[in-house]
Amino acid sequence: MDADEFRRSGGEMVDFIADYLQNIRQRRPLPAVSPGYLKKLISEEAPSDGESWESVKDDIEKVIMPGVSSAHTFREPLLASSPACTELEMIALDWLGKMLRLPQDFLFSGERQGGSIILGGASEAILISLISARKAAINKLRCLDPQLTNGQALDKLVAYTSDQTHCCMEKSCLIGLVSLTILPSDTTGALSWETLEAAICRDLARGLVPVFFCATIGTTSTCAFDNLAELGPVCNKYGVWMHVDAAYAGSACICPEFRYLLDGVEHCTSISVSPHKWLLVNYDCTALWTLSHPQHWQVNMGRRFRSLKLWFVLRMYGVKGLQERIRQDVHLAKQFAQMVKADSRFELIGDVTLGLVCFRLKHCNCVNEELHEKLKSDRRIHLIPSSFKGKFFLRFVICPASTQLQDVSFAWSVINEITDGITRHCATRRAKPPGSCACITIRHS
Amino acid sequence: MDADEFRRSGGEMVDFIADYLQNIRQRRPLPAVSPGYLKKLISEEAPSDGESWESVKDDIEKVIMPGVSSAHTFREPLLASSPACTELEMIALDWLGKMLRLPQDFLFSGERQGGSIILGGASEAILISLISARKAAINKLRCLDPQLTNGQALDKLVAYTSDQTHCCMEKSCLIGLVSLTILPSDTTGALSWETLEAAICRDLARGLVPVFFCATIGTTSTCAFDNLAELGPVCNKYGVWMHVDAAYAGSACICPEFRYLLDGVEHCTSISVSPHKWLLVNYDCTALWTLSHPQHWQVNMGRRFRSLKLWFVLRMYGVKGLQERIRQDVHLAKQFAQMVKADSRFELIGDVTLGLVCFRLKHCNCVNEELHEKLKSDRRIHLIPSSFKGKFFLRFVICPASTQLQDVSFAWSVINEITDGITRHCATRRAKPPGSCACITIRHS
Repeated sequence: MDADEFRRSGGEMVDFIADYLQNIRQRRPLPAVSPGYLKKLISEEAPSDGESWESVKDDIEKVIMPGVSSAHTFREPLLASSPACTELEMIALDWLGKMLRLPQDFLFSGERQGGSIILGGASEAILISLISARKAAINKLRCLDPQLTNGQALDKLVAYTSDQTHCCMEKSCLIGLVSLTILPSDTTGALSWETLEAAICRDLARGLVPVFFCATIGTTSTCAFDNLAELGPVCNKYGVWMHVDAAYAGSACICPEFRYLLDGVEHCTSISVSPHKWLLVNYDCTALWTLSHPQHWQVNMGRRFRSLKLWFVLRMYGVKGLQERIRQDVHLAKQFAQMVKADSRFELIGDVTLGLVCFRLKHCNCVNEELHEKLKSDRRIHLIPSSFKGKFFLRFVICPASTQLQDVSFAWSVINEITDGITRHCATRRAKPPGSCACITIRHS
Repeated sequence: MDADEFRRSGGEMVDFIADYLQNIRQRRPLPAVSPGYLKKLISEEAPSDGESWESVKDDIEKVIMPGVSSAHTFREPLLASSPACTELEMIALDWLGKMLRLPQDFLFSGERQGGSIILGGASEAILISLISARKAAINKLRCLDPQLTNGQALDKLVAYTSDQTHCCMEKSCLIGLVSLTILPSDTTGALSWETLEAAICRDLARGLVPVFFCATIGTTSTCAFDNLAELGPVCNKYGVWMHVDAAYAGSACICPEFRYLLDGVEHCTSISVSPHKWLLVNYDCTALWTLSHPQHWQVNMGRRFRSLKLWFVLRMYGVKGLQERIRQDVHLAKQFAQMVKADSRFELIGDVTLGLVCFRLKHCNCVNEELHEKLKSDRRIHLIPSSFKGKFFLRFVICPASTQLQDVSFAWSVINEITDGITRHCATRRAKPPGSCACITIRHS
């Protein structure tokens, strides 16, 4: 959708809302539909090709509005007063789950207890999963020993994750009061199953109860991928709830060529993907699928009608359209990586699998830090740096929706221009005796 | 704002967004403003009279956009990349805090550590407060006895609330794993300070640590009000964190004549009010003020730019405009209560202080349940029932923004029509011998 189409369709939605409010007395306060009404009106899978805005808009009145209450418009958690809100979310998330080829058991349309919800972020998804795992574990411990208090049971529980997992895992453990063991990742930034199993066995030997493990598909720092097919069986062996945080990289798995990243997801108990990160859906929209309905699906009671925007995007782009956008972004990232590789002053950190390129000057950390500081004060481009195994580097990420080759080339020209200034400056500095340059002590490369 | 104004201004905002996206390459990825830039551009208090949409719109480009990054538009939690988002929230919540005449210590502009945040609902506000109180209590216990584990400390903690508190308090305690004691409310639905103090003393005598109390200003069932001025000193005496859930009724406290409901708030540690309930702000928008910055301000890391809608509403209605809307809604509720009182078949449950009227047929519960069922299947109006001290009743609430006397009269006419059918039916039933009517066993009135 280009800017002019956006103007037209946005204007139509404004009119739709104004009409709705102006004529609200003609609507009934409670919808007359029966539970499950929406399933009969919507196809079971996302369209392969994108549809026109007109056909989506028509369905708002035909398909959605009959299941919306006038009294609680767009903010009602109850199935009774806003079945459209609940049912569209179930359908849209089943669509997305199928696009990601998640096992049937994660879907509402599956045979088991699986299901999903749209949350505000990966943090809430991990918290909800952790709380569910904690509850099951405490119940089990107290069933075996009815004298055990909540606190005594809690003291036995351990959760695991790697040092490359997003800090929201730590935050969830602080809120859930579950001890967290942070395990060292391997040279690629992934956690090996041997490391996980060794930690679990060590804790079991100490009388502790391993309860939760959070794997990451696409780490924040370097976009590394934990191997679910190897880690999953370890979790299953010891009865550990395995959650997969695929907030960013999960979206790419709608492309068959990237789906291997989720191989092994059938061993997991829950997985979260944030379409607001890379699937053209506006913030916020994080999908959590789980094999068993949690006691609490979310922190708050009320719910916004977030499935509408997901449904709009899935229909207007279609599966092929979204795959094409992902591939285009990955292609741009690879083009940027080529530019970096072709310049002998720079090196890449890790592989470029998706839209993130990690790179640095073949130099000490402090020169790279200087490059970052200068880019920051220059203000023409914005790069967020990171460190991995002691190496400070810059991260270039293709932001979805609007990035083009001209933007990538522009960014590279700015980096070059700033680098030229730095290397000149650094040459002067390196002329000094080694001991006088603080940077030498933190060199790792 | 009427429907035509909404069409015009909504269309302008669509154009604004389209222009923004179309010309995004002309913007810098990071804003050039310094921290605190916004305070200098915005007045310290909400306007008394409403302003035009034009003046608000002008300020979006002049005041907001200089503090917005193009790279992370409207979804960036970082002060660095979107200072407008962070700073506008601080300013708008200080405005609202001043409108509610909260003690200075709750405000960013105060001298102490107070501050506030917009969250998604009262549940999250209570959870954040509870987790903060829990953390402080566990730290203190483990400081006194370094051998104590987290679980052992946790087992000592107790939270309190009344049987009229929203169930989200129970949910917060389940997530936070803190024991909750639910105390009986008095005949008005409020919790007496004597009941709270007796419970605290009983637990202290058992070696437990009272840590958190959630008071309610405007309970869900009957809109009852806990007396903060009496309960607060009890909490202070025993070092208990007192949170005030004023989700619905808090909004009314912008009117001087209702501000007494918050008398005693100076004894509390945190308070939450949901402008999405009664201050014309779209869902979701819950304000949490607290005296001390919590370790975690919210569950998720990312944040939407929710302060914009709060700021728009405060400016376009002004304090007087919003007070007028509250008064109008309360007046409508009192008009409905008059209709109920004038009909000898009905009785009111409790007083009508704000926008909720609780009423029932002067009859057994099952006849009232029948009235509710019939209204539900009739579908012309939507009332949510409740029970208090064994009495089942109906709840008529004035929904903000669009309810008029004609709607109230229409609702009353529907209730009358349905009641006529019921009382006839019931007359038949009451002719039967007492024992044959199941309803008699659950009669309370």
